[in-house]
Amino acid sequence: MSTSTNSAYVPGLEGIIGAQTAISMVDGANGRLVYQGYVIADLAQQMSFEEVAYLLWKGQLPTKAQLDGLALELAASRTLTQAATIALDALPADTDPMDVLRSVVSIQGVEHRLSQPTVPLAIHAAASFPTILAMFYRRQLGLEPVTPRRDLGHAANYLYMMNGKEAGPEVVRALNTYLVLLADHGMNASTFTARVIASTESDLTSCLVGAIGALKGPAHGGAPSAVIEQLERIGTAENAEPWMRDARKQKIKFMGFGHRVYRVYDPRAKILKEMCRQMNPRFYELATRVEEVALKILHEEHPERPQSVNVEFYSAGVLQAIGLPKEFFTPTFAVSRVAGWSAHVLEQAAHNRIIRPQSEYIGPEPRKPVPLAERG
Amino acid sequence: MSTSTNSAYVPGLEGIIGAQTAISMVDGANGRLVYQGYVIADLAQQMSFEEVAYLLWKGQLPTKAQLDGLALELAASRTLTQAATIALDALPADTDPMDVLRSVVSIQGVEHRLSQPTVPLAIHAAASFPTILAMFYRRQLGLEPVTPRRDLGHAANYLYMMNGKEAGPEVVRALNTYLVLLADHGMNASTFTARVIASTESDLTSCLVGAIGALKGPAHGGAPSAVIEQLERIGTAENAEPWMRDARKQKIKFMGFGHRVYRVYDPRAKILKEMCRQMNPRFYELATRVEEVALKILHEEHPERPQSVNVEFYSAGVLQAIGLPKEFFTPTFAVSRVAGWSAHVLEQAAHNRIIRPQSEYIGPEPRKPVPLAERG
Repeated sequence: MSTSTNSAYVPGLEGIIGAQTAISMVDGANGRLVYQGYVIADLAQQMSFEEVAYLLWKGQLPTKAQLDGLALELAASRTLTQAATIALDALPADTDPMDVLRSVVSIQGVEHRLSQPTVPLAIHAAASFPTILAMFYRRQLGLEPVTPRRDLGHAANYLYMMNGKEAGPEVVRALNTYLVLLADHGMNASTFTARVIASTESDLTSCLVGAIGALKGPAHGGAPSAVIEQLERIGTAENAEPWMRDARKQKIKFMGFGHRVYRVYDPRAKILKEMCRQMNPRFYELATRVEEVALKILHEEHPERPQSVNVEFYSAGVLQAIGLPKEFFTPTFAVSRVAGWSAHVLEQAAHNRIIRPQSEYIGPEPRKPVPLAERG
Repeated sequence: MSTSTNSAYVPGLEGIIGAQTAISMVDGANGRLVYQGYVIADLAQQMSFEEVAYLLWKGQLPTKAQLDGLALELAASRTLTQAATIALDALPADTDPMDVLRSVVSIQGVEHRLSQPTVPLAIHAAASFPTILAMFYRRQLGLEPVTPRRDLGHAANYLYMMNGKEAGPEVVRALNTYLVLLADHGMNASTFTARVIASTESDLTSCLVGAIGALKGPAHGGAPSAVIEQLERIGTAENAEPWMRDARKQKIKFMGFGHRVYRVYDPRAKILKEMCRQMNPRFYELATRVEEVALKILHEEHPERPQSVNVEFYSAGVLQAIGLPKEFFTPTFAVSRVAGWSAHVLEQAAHNRIIRPQSEYIGPEPRKPVPLAERG
């Protein structure tokens, strides 16, 4: 009854190749994440987010002059349009910051209409994310917005706009590393969303707005605040095992565990865990114990499944140490991932074919409708 | 190097099954479109858009009482929130109406935060689309917005809010038929976008906002105004063949032709073509000649390919006859398709598995980065 297809339905498209990409490789078997030919461990601590964004967009690391040029363009794009500012101020103060981002990024982008995606447009969009979040955060607190500082890098300026004062170099470095680590990750659901939208020849803003909506989902990026909340409920390392055994009886899910791809330790989690050890010892003590107990219980339940923490588990501890409120964990994920999203949109636009899979019809066989008057 | 996959990369996921659905079946071989077991030709002229939306959402046609209930709920949901109204008024008057819709739907939805998708939320969203478009249209013209009328159906009220006066019954019937015909169509790119976003357990608004962005693309829903523009350039039936032969020499694409799925005449185009014959004879005369010439030329170029007009070709003539400005053709497509999008989101949420395909890495082999100072 349905049209011809190449293969049987695979729920979630698991194992189906959705795109070819040079932007990143998730090497799950070896626990490696590669950006354009560089292993994440080699980038995380020595590169700025700006360098890595350039790498993702252009396929090579910038020279000093190119990096300076990018920094200038980013700094010049940190103000919101009048319409975006008015909309942001009109949103209820208790709006989910992901909904703020989705809405205000959409409005900030209307001036570009149906433009072809370009690197300057990617820079323009990426620059706006921290401004939107910081303005909304300060509005929630009843504080005036802070004018962005052109002399500060992306991570430093984000914290400056949030807090109204410069953060210390260690905190800035930690946020920078977080932003580098989360900037891309193969064909995750939000990146795939961005590519599907790009494949209709739509504009970059439409792609980013869709991606933000996908990242918001708890099954994707929407869970790191839930990690903190669960750890708060557990309270102490001693309480971990009794609490967690009891939780499983009540079918409560452990937050921050499981990933479809990695068969060994997530290389990002490894770096973030070490950062937690240094920056957030209280979190680290509790979290490592919870990790240990969770893996033990999960292994007891499903000895055949590989289990590990995912990137959100130790992200939560790093973002907490940086001083970001937990409602801003997922939006800060977006501040990073916008680099990867826009790189994928550029790549999709350069080698495009509309992404339009088949569907398999499982509804009733066609029959004649009963007229309204006879439907009782 | 990449992780294991089930099959080779298929660009555009052509022929890959992206979802199982009971909502619609595009039976390309037989030129049939089926909604929940009813052939579109049986629904198009005898059902209201409201009945069809109910069918898509609930899987069965409503009784009279159920339909009355739906009409009441729709009518009660036609006003915008304060934040949505302020944002709409803040947008530049030359904003693309698709960008208006993407932005204001996003803001209208913030009050629902991360709610589970439900039919009442789908009704709420669907009711807002005509209000957003009509308010913006009238603002472009410097006119006051028109308060929605609770006693009018969905199609009639949309035209009433656009024009500030009731449209005639034939025009309302034509718009209703258009809205029924375009309400769903298998796994097109915008519907697939909505399902990918839904698969992360995100909210309905996020799904709809992503879908609007995908529909905006000229390779998907963004082309019907281009049909009118091309016909205007051709001008007369006599000029069709010389203009079009010349156009092909200049590699100009014929607008409104080609579809990946149908191998015979698109059943929606057939109905819309007959509507054009009755309502828009001037358009019909030119368009049928352009169709004839286009198919002849396309067949000469690629005798092996089946060729036909797509739904956008005769949609343009119907929407023109209804009196909608061409910038509102694609947004009016969204007024219809929101019924299908939200039905797919409900279906995805009910049988969910995160849609996360693989990617195939085609970038360079991992190597050590050169430090910035040595990059010249």
